[in-house]
Amino acid sequence: MKRTSLSDSLCPVARTLDLIGDWWTLLIVRDALGGVRRFSEFQRSLGVAKNILSSRLKTLVAEGVMQIGPASDGSAYQEYVLTQKGKDLYPILIALGQWGNQYMFNENETCSRVVERETQQPLAPIKLRSQDGRELAAEQVEVIVGQKGTNFAS
Amino acid sequence: MKRTSLSDSLCPVARTLDLIGDWWTLLIVRDALGGVRRFSEFQRSLGVAKNILSSRLKTLVAEGVMQIGPASDGSAYQEYVLTQKGKDLYPILIALGQWGNQYMFNENETCSRVVERETQQPLAPIKLRSQDGRELAAEQVEVIVGQKGTNFAS
Repeated sequence: MKRTSLSDSLCPVARTLDLIGDWWTLLIVRDALGGVRRFSEFQRSLGVAKNILSSRLKTLVAEGVMQIGPASDGSAYQEYVLTQKGKDLYPILIALGQWGNQYMFNENETCSRVVERETQQPLAPIKLRSQDGRELAAEQVEVIVGQKGTNFAS
Repeated sequence: MKRTSLSDSLCPVARTLDLIGDWWTLLIVRDALGGVRRFSEFQRSLGVAKNILSSRLKTLVAEGVMQIGPASDGSAYQEYVLTQKGKDLYPILIALGQWGNQYMFNENETCSRVVERETQQPLAPIKLRSQDGRELAAEQVEVIVGQKGTNFAS
């Protein structure tokens, strides 16, 4: 399937979506954040075809989202581990998950959610906030264009 | 292209990704948050084929993310407007955009970003936070399974 490339877009949302490519990629990152490291584990967890999984992992490594390392137990298996760039995708997954918890499940339906390990309390809802922490509504923000590395993008 | 359905997954990330379907959907929502309302405007902005745009808008309306209303200028055109459910996708787009700003642009490259309208300052970076506002690292959170509507999902 031919896909328009968004990789030269000025919009960082479009570029990110272009890299992520399809949903498998974010589900791979989700599993990696949950501790999955081996090809066969990803395959079992996701139920995805091997050729698709292989291609997505290859892209993630090429883009610096994951890196390949030796098995943590000393065996011959390769392991896929998130880089910092990969771990920094976590807020995107949490935002997707919180929206899904709110809108995609009926009351009393069983669902998974992310909690703080120590307190077992759900995380705070992700909101748009100003630099000094005020919550902002959609109507209070706007898109501007400028140069990265200036105050604009600090 | 056949796609595994994730709509009955326990994972809210998977269900949300299943609804969103492909990247066009999030780019439509992005444009709608920026004030785009008409089919022809979405088409021009996104450069997407009419049949794809039509199909994605239909899904968004069916899922309650957008609703169709009369034209705001009294003309015969229909307009597509985000519901609250749709506006609540904004944190997902901001999280995608902030990650993209950080990782998908070179220094000094031109990029767009979201600012607070009144101060023209960039929004605060989206972080994982506990209920009482402490910033949490990926290692401090975990996934649990429970029932929506209980304290677990409050």
